[in-house]
Amino acid sequence: MTKETISNEFKLLQTSICSGLEKMDGTASFQSDTWERSEGGGGRTNTTANGTIIEKGGVAFSAVHGPVSQVMKQQLGLDGDAFFATGISIVIHPSSPHVPIIHMNVRYFELDNGTYWFGGGIDLTPHYIVPENAALFHKRLKAICDQYHAQFYEKQKPWADTYFHIPHRNESRGVGGIFFDHLSEDSSSLTKKELFDYCKELASNFVSIYSEQVHLGKDKSVSEEQVRWRDLRRGRYVEFNLVHDKGTKFGLFSGGRTESILMSLPPLANWHYDYHPKANSDEETTLRYLSSPQNWIVI
Amino acid sequence: MTKETISNEFKLLQTSICSGLEKMDGTASFQSDTWERSEGGGGRTNTTANGTIIEKGGVAFSAVHGPVSQVMKQQLGLDGDAFFATGISIVIHPSSPHVPIIHMNVRYFELDNGTYWFGGGIDLTPHYIVPENAALFHKRLKAICDQYHAQFYEKQKPWADTYFHIPHRNESRGVGGIFFDHLSEDSSSLTKKELFDYCKELASNFVSIYSEQVHLGKDKSVSEEQVRWRDLRRGRYVEFNLVHDKGTKFGLFSGGRTESILMSLPPLANWHYDYHPKANSDEETTLRYLSSPQNWIVI
Repeated sequence: MTKETISNEFKLLQTSICSGLEKMDGTASFQSDTWERSEGGGGRTNTTANGTIIEKGGVAFSAVHGPVSQVMKQQLGLDGDAFFATGISIVIHPSSPHVPIIHMNVRYFELDNGTYWFGGGIDLTPHYIVPENAALFHKRLKAICDQYHAQFYEKQKPWADTYFHIPHRNESRGVGGIFFDHLSEDSSSLTKKELFDYCKELASNFVSIYSEQVHLGKDKSVSEEQVRWRDLRRGRYVEFNLVHDKGTKFGLFSGGRTESILMSLPPLANWHYDYHPKANSDEETTLRYLSSPQNWIVI
Repeated sequence: MTKETISNEFKLLQTSICSGLEKMDGTASFQSDTWERSEGGGGRTNTTANGTIIEKGGVAFSAVHGPVSQVMKQQLGLDGDAFFATGISIVIHPSSPHVPIIHMNVRYFELDNGTYWFGGGIDLTPHYIVPENAALFHKRLKAICDQYHAQFYEKQKPWADTYFHIPHRNESRGVGGIFFDHLSEDSSSLTKKELFDYCKELASNFVSIYSEQVHLGKDKSVSEEQVRWRDLRRGRYVEFNLVHDKGTKFGLFSGGRTESILMSLPPLANWHYDYHPKANSDEETTLRYLSSPQNWIVI
């Protein structure tokens, strides 16, 4: 299980995910943008815009390496001189307010001192929360988790709730999902191969999991007020990613490739001063669900 | 020169600035939102939307006090147990791409150990940079600075260039202006009264300075491409404020009032993956000006 094997398989998964998303969308077509990093390595950022379902989407692959910088030592507490990191990152902003935003990331990191770990996660951000749809999403994730480790879902679900939280709004970003970091043989009872298989299983199921969610919402009629609400929720997504998301902040402050990092931002976002939805509206119901982490599977 | 006098005068300035902006706009009307802070003090946030010139604007006053928290001690290095802070903050997002975004802030801070200082600044963010208009803006600021201190402009202009810089884009936020902090009798040769007069002079001239800029652009015809560019530039404004602006970050992380802090965000912003303007276009010219700080007055 060399780093080359891992990054090659991630790169193949990027290609198959893009084909799957194109098929799901019907008209979307991903454009590839290959880039190099002066300190070592590079990536391929695939993006699409103005499809039938996907208004703006990105599926990014990268495999970078080089000396461990001062910023990395300080912010990540890394105990090595050289690193290698590879992964896939996905964010999809759909045009319909009834189709959720989705994010997925799987990544592998190793240091020249022999330590390595996997990290990643997948989370869903509906503009309008439908508890049954959130439950379906979580069931799909739990089923994958359970194949690998009896405690993965139990540990990684609350980790996502903690990670995808917007403290200055006291809101969850969405209905959560799973999040994990520093997964290795030492920190789990699994082999490196099993942990890599787990990451690949998540990535391989991404299109199918998202397609289910898309189909549940895509044919619903859309009002102007719902579009306005979608854009306000996209504003919250911007706030989370730019103010709180550790990955985004680390990338921007450590000299990462800005366009690939900010690929996660929506095509368009709105802010209105102190907006409050009407009492008992669907918008208010969604805010209520976002006010604290929910145990979706038993709802 | 008590803290009560200072905050009362700031509050009066907020009212006169709002009347001045309403007159300038023609149809805009500010709504007042008064709030209290549980730890002590409060504020009045005045906002307007969908005027003739101003698409979204806020003029916020606050006067807050209380114990110096751990976050304040760590992030601001404060050497006291209790603080008092008062100020006015303005951000105006105009609808025309040919009218610049403007920001102004004047503030006063004191600690129970007897130390105090003034801070603030004013800066302009044109969607399309016109060097003559930037020069006019800087001449107006320099004229005010020169009335108070021969070195204010010389020191505060580059301070704004440093402060309003977007490192991850390697771009200036706009054409800059002036920025100052920790201004006191000790750090300048001026009395407390003179420093307060300087802050008031900036605030009193705000509407006149902005009106000049508005009149230079408001009647220019607007194409769809220019609106799209305006929204991309607004996206950069969001990136600066949420990723880099020390005031915004401190406010959000120290439990400030989110809606008043994020009043600075535009009504709508756009992101497109890796957008580059056409060669020799007005958009490209603007990016060229933003690539390094300019000495606008001699241009």
